[in-house]
Amino acid sequence: MSDALPPVEDRASMNGLEYFQMMAAGEIPLPEFVRLAGLSIAEVSFGRIVFLGTAEPRYYNGLAVAHGGWTATLLDSALACAINTAQPAGRVFTTLELKINYTRPITTQVGQVRCEATVLHVGSRTATAEARIVDAAGKLYAHATTTCIVM
Amino acid sequence: MSDALPPVEDRASMNGLEYFQMMAAGEIPLPEFVRLAGLSIAEVSFGRIVFLGTAEPRYYNGLAVAHGGWTATLLDSALACAINTAQPAGRVFTTLELKINYTRPITTQVGQVRCEATVLHVGSRTATAEARIVDAAGKLYAHATTTCIVM
Amino acid sequence: MSDALPPVEDRASMNGLEYFQMMAAGEIPLPEFVRLAGLSIAEVSFGRIVFLGTAEPRYYNGLAVAHGGWTATLLDSALACAINTAQPAGRVFTTLELKINYTRPITTQVGQVRCEATVLHVGSRTATAEARIVDAAGKLYAHATTTCIVM
Amino acid sequence: MSDALPPVEDRASMNGLEYFQMMAAGEIPLPEFVRLAGLSIAEVSFGRIVFLGTAEPRYYNGLAVAHGGWTATLLDSALACAINTAQPAGRVFTTLELKINYTRPITTQVGQVRCEATVLHVGSRTATAEARIVDAAGKLYAHATTTCIVM
Repeated sequence: MSDALPPVEDRASMNGLEYFQMMAAGEIPLPEFVRLAGLSIAEVSFGRIVFLGTAEPRYYNGLAVAHGGWTATLLDSALACAINTAQPAGRVFTTLELKINYTRPITTQVGQVRCEATVLHVGSRTATAEARIVDAAGKLYAHATTTCIVM
Repeated sequence: MSDALPPVEDRASMNGLEYFQMMAAGEIPLPEFVRLAGLSIAEVSFGRIVFLGTAEPRYYNGLAVAHGGWTATLLDSALACAINTAQPAGRVFTTLELKINYTRPITTQVGQVRCEATVLHVGSRTATAEARIVDAAGKLYAHATTTCIVM
Repeated sequence: MSDALPPVEDRASMNGLEYFQMMAAGEIPLPEFVRLAGLSIAEVSFGRIVFLGTAEPRYYNGLAVAHGGWTATLLDSALACAINTAQPAGRVFTTLELKINYTRPITTQVGQVRCEATVLHVGSRTATAEARIVDAAGKLYAHATTTCIVM
Repeated sequence: MSDALPPVEDRASMNGLEYFQMMAAGEIPLPEFVRLAGLSIAEVSFGRIVFLGTAEPRYYNGLAVAHGGWTATLLDSALACAINTAQPAGRVFTTLELKINYTRPITTQVGQVRCEATVLHVGSRTATAEARIVDAAGKLYAHATTTCIVM
């Protein structure tokens, strides 16, 4: 993974889909906290992205399951990126609000989980998206929605 | 900080207030992901807790501000702990849903932020709480509410 | 529409799907506030329901568009009913929390809108669902999620 | 109550605080759906408003308690008005998203409830507020937050 190009500047010169396709390919580095949370991008298309992650013990809370903040990191990454894959060059949305439902505990034993986010609405000032975290069998662990606002 | 006692077992033998007072004093370790996010506990009382954190660059997203997931980790930690400070021994609540509003970007330049969480409602099965993140001058960076459910 | 049977008692003797199918057929009355908001049920299946409504001027706020509370009535009705269509006799869920995104203003000129709600998760104690309000052309006016809890 | 002046036009010529003070005094009519829900304004100040309501049987759902949509009408009215009391003439915010927690059922027996809403954040494009519904004894029945966006 190259650290040569600072992520923010890249976004002025290419559209959101190109930007996240390069990130998925390792040509643009993942953001710092996304790396710290052990996440990666599996798929990117217009208005849709899939992140992967595994709830290793270093991501646990005091109840020996994934911390709600780790799950939020996975969901927020996917939601904001899904919205940004649908934007032209120079137009970036940032998270205004985030709503998460935790439906099952995520542990290391669950294995790698998949977080798919899809755009619901894109307006001139705000956009919304939804995301779900599922395991390899399709079982639902969390779902979320977001509102992003253009920067 | 002692790692001798696994956090989960402790919670059967002492009430929530004692448990988080010991955690604030460093006698019970902070959960793994809370440490990874660089957070600490400043104050604990019945139904109320204050966490501290600093948005260092390793907690950033691709826009060079604190990742929404880092902010969520700070808020979720404070919210769930606030509810658990108000519980008797053997009674633990876990996060069912979390709603966050991001009102200003948090960067390293903001300095240490303070996240105060307070219980709003405790019922027999569910409980709710609210939290706010402010800087040293009291400026608001994020606020959140949660619903927790008894385990 | 028959007002002979009080709604609450009916739910002990039939499952949720039968109950809402009878309500859709006019054999069980719609709840009072659902009637006041001018809503009706168009389709019912296991884990899914479609409500219809028209934002008449009596449902407006001070900005001459549908009041957020009218839209919330449509969404909450659909969400809670969708979850209850998937329950056996004697098992009823009630709304614990509701999260709504208003993406476009709804006015009388929009015509009849359709609110489709679908179950996302059913656990032993809580269940979640999502809903969307669209017009005849499929344009999105609002979306929501809910958490319900067993009574 | 005078119906002479259409609410929307008034808001160009007076600031939000004056506007809602006149509405509280009955000099500007309450919006249509607010009247249908039986609500009134008890107090108005800069960034804060108190609405009153009683959960009469015509506001019930199928479980013989106040419909979540009626409670949402009370909360959304108070939240949006609280934000608008803090705006200059010609500047109006409308609801972008709404998050409600229902902590206790509201029935006619509860008597008149009081919904107090307070601004949390006012930015150039969005604003947030929080609200609580309590009975005469201060018992909490619901709480909510909102994000509004400038029109």
